Amino acid sequence: MASVNPPRGMRDFLPAEKARRERVLAVIRERYRAHGFDEIETPVVEDYDRLHAGIGGDNEKLAYNVLKRGLDADAIRAGADDPRALSDLGLRYDLTVPLARFYASHRAELPSVFHAIQIAPVWRAERPQKGRYRQFMQCDIDVIGDAGPRAEAELIVATLDTLDALGLEGGSVRINDRRVLEWMLDTFGFAPDERAGVLITIDKLDKIGVDGVVAELRERGATPPAVDAFERFLKRPQTREFWPYGERQIRKALPEGAPDDVVSHLVGIGEAVAAARGGGDIPLVFDAFLVRGMGYYTGTIFELAHPSVTYSLGGGGRYDGMIGRFLGQDVPAVGFSIGFERIVDLVEAKADADERAIVLVHDRDVPLAELLALKNAFVADGVRVRLEQRTKNLKGLLDRAAADGYTAFATVAAGAALEELEVKPLS
Amino acid sequence: MASVNPPRGMRDFLPAEKARRERVLAVIRERYRAHGFDEIETPVVEDYDRLHAGIGGDNEKLAYNVLKRGLDADAIRAGADDPRALSDLGLRYDLTVPLARFYASHRAELPSVFHAIQIAPVWRAERPQKGRYRQFMQCDIDVIGDAGPRAEAELIVATLDTLDALGLEGGSVRINDRRVLEWMLDTFGFAPDERAGVLITIDKLDKIGVDGVVAELRERGATPPAVDAFERFLKRPQTREFWPYGERQIRKALPEGAPDDVVSHLVGIGEAVAAARGGGDIPLVFDAFLVRGMGYYTGTIFELAHPSVTYSLGGGGRYDGMIGRFLGQDVPAVGFSIGFERIVDLVEAKADADERAIVLVHDRDVPLAELLALKNAFVADGVRVRLEQRTKNLKGLLDRAAADGYTAFATVAAGAALEELEVKPLS
Repeated sequence: MASVNPPRGMRDFLPAEKARRERVLAVIRERYRAHGFDEIETPVVEDYDRLHAGIGGDNEKLAYNVLKRGLDADAIRAGADDPRALSDLGLRYDLTVPLARFYASHRAELPSVFHAIQIAPVWRAERPQKGRYRQFMQCDIDVIGDAGPRAEAELIVATLDTLDALGLEGGSVRINDRRVLEWMLDTFGFAPDERAGVLITIDKLDKIGVDGVVAELRERGATPPAVDAFERFLKRPQTREFWPYGERQIRKALPEGAPDDVVSHLVGIGEAVAAARGGGDIPLVFDAFLVRGMGYYTGTIFELAHPSVTYSLGGGGRYDGMIGRFLGQDVPAVGFSIGFERIVDLVEAKADADERAIVLVHDRDVPLAELLALKNAFVADGVRVRLEQRTKNLKGLLDRAAADGYTAFATVAAGAALEELEVKPLS
Repeated sequence: MASVNPPRGMRDFLPAEKARRERVLAVIRERYRAHGFDEIETPVVEDYDRLHAGIGGDNEKLAYNVLKRGLDADAIRAGADDPRALSDLGLRYDLTVPLARFYASHRAELPSVFHAIQIAPVWRAERPQKGRYRQFMQCDIDVIGDAGPRAEAELIVATLDTLDALGLEGGSVRINDRRVLEWMLDTFGFAPDERAGVLITIDKLDKIGVDGVVAELRERGATPPAVDAFERFLKRPQTREFWPYGERQIRKALPEGAPDDVVSHLVGIGEAVAAARGGGDIPLVFDAFLVRGMGYYTGTIFELAHPSVTYSLGGGGRYDGMIGRFLGQDVPAVGFSIGFERIVDLVEAKADADERAIVLVHDRDVPLAELLALKNAFVADGVRVRLEQRTKNLKGLLDRAAADGYTAFATVAAGAALEELEVKPLS
């Protein structure tokens, strides 16, 4: 008999885990809505040409393509060399490309500054490994149509508030700006056409350290005096911690002469986040060498950090060029994606303490009509009810119900009236 | 420039419509949970062999298949005649096949009688037409492991209660049993190998009437005396309305000698539903010629009706044979699928009257930090907040916000304190 497992790299969710995921999603959705974001939805598949237009970066290579329908064997043989002949649709690999397509399609029906929520699965044909799945949820918020620091500030405040609401207080955001990175590379003396490769190496700073990065840059054949300048700057007698967040500290973290507009954009974000959070430390950390992978970022980039873990819990950035690819007219845009699959493993998403849920364990001889009348009396009273016929392993039955969020039970004999039932707490 | 529309036959959902859909889904999910059903989730794609095992009926032909990854042109040419060589996965076309696969995989971790909720999209490559989409939501509840009428009764009670909760009171369920249909066909004298074809014709009774069905049966070449017996029975001096629901009426609707076990199963369902609904008319209608299309049904079948519409709002039935196809051991199963896409168009899913949502319309010169502090003071107080910079078309801006569910607005000038704001209702 064939396997009954889900496809490789994908997951089934049993009731307890599904309920936990839905509770976390409900918190995220509610907080994002409170901050003035509006949820939209796009189809799970997009046209092949949209997904393979060079704006999805490496993810394009991981896309699942859908076989065109109605092809006969001759058409398949004739199209064997051309992916577009065999496939007209694909599963989305992120929510940003569909959002850009959506915005271009519906701009006239949306507010001039549009705050979008997207909570939906995406698919990537990654090599399956622990903690990496081929179908996973993404929770994105994006602000489209606002070039100023307010957009970033609203995203960051909404994200940190959501983290707080999930019981993960103490989160912070590492922030940088692609324009700062590019200006630094110019300043060190790298050539414009080296940038992309140099950034890929610099992105490894946390993993392989300054010496590792310098060695890899030399191996790559990057302009030698630029590598020297980069090494000198990184090894200057300064820490990488410039605390608290503010203009003076940002300037100290950079070579002299950093572009004023970028610095004031970064400072503006910090001031707004601080005001929204009502004082106290600004939960931002400027990191001049934060890179983030996606090629489409054009300005600020950020990552969500939390003291309980070493990996990031989300990230995002500004991608002012992408909407123009669909609309034929540039529109500023910036997004923040919270790492749902990582977060759901961290939070204690307990069932509502308020939820009343009872298991009615009945003898085999209780007439069906009596049983359903009893069940429905509880349901009508706002209680969640599971009926279970008594088995020898009563404990196993009750343990399973407790795992599914039931909090009480009662045993039902034939002829029992509602008011005679003895309701006992579960576990 | 390429089209920015969603793929043919699929839909984008803008904020107001998305919010409406989510509110309806929340009611459905909450009611189903109250009735003791537990939500699960399976991946959107299933193995090709699962989807094309002959249990999905006509829907198998409508499946979207996913192109196998890593095929080179030679492999594609070599596999051109064999769909399995080109595709190893497909998008699910219903939630029943995945549920059967899920249950076979996880049986040991589930209650002995498992009450499942599945709320998720499915895909069918239908010819696009009004009201029929290639991606649409299905909301299914299923009871696995209970052969008795309690399973049907719980499904029907939960479904009607959900319809009530959505403001669609007055729903009813047309019910029949495949075993009754088959027994009748035998009784009339049709041969067992004619059954499937005869049922396809009988399914048109509501559309083309008794004479139309009889003519089509003759055209089909069905056993002539059997067609005569069928015609005589349908034209006997009786109405098709046998009211109220009960054993006497069910027997009157059938030829004499109907199988006792099936009749008592149907009667048991009615008694249990009546008890659960707390008296009054039983919201069931026995229809001896209800067929329903899917070939996998083995027992009771039902359709959800509502006085406001002529089409059905959902349906389901018993499919005791299907799980065995995956598990190698038969397990009784019955499901009810509520027609979300039809229902969402009928209900007035107004935003919670309780939800407080305000638009803050600010002048351009209000400092960003001031604005975000103000916004967050509202958010912290449980209010949903949208910031909008004042434009010449203030009315257009407020109308759009009202459509998105905002209920109040205030204008904000630089230096304004929270307590000075004049909050006005949004029409």
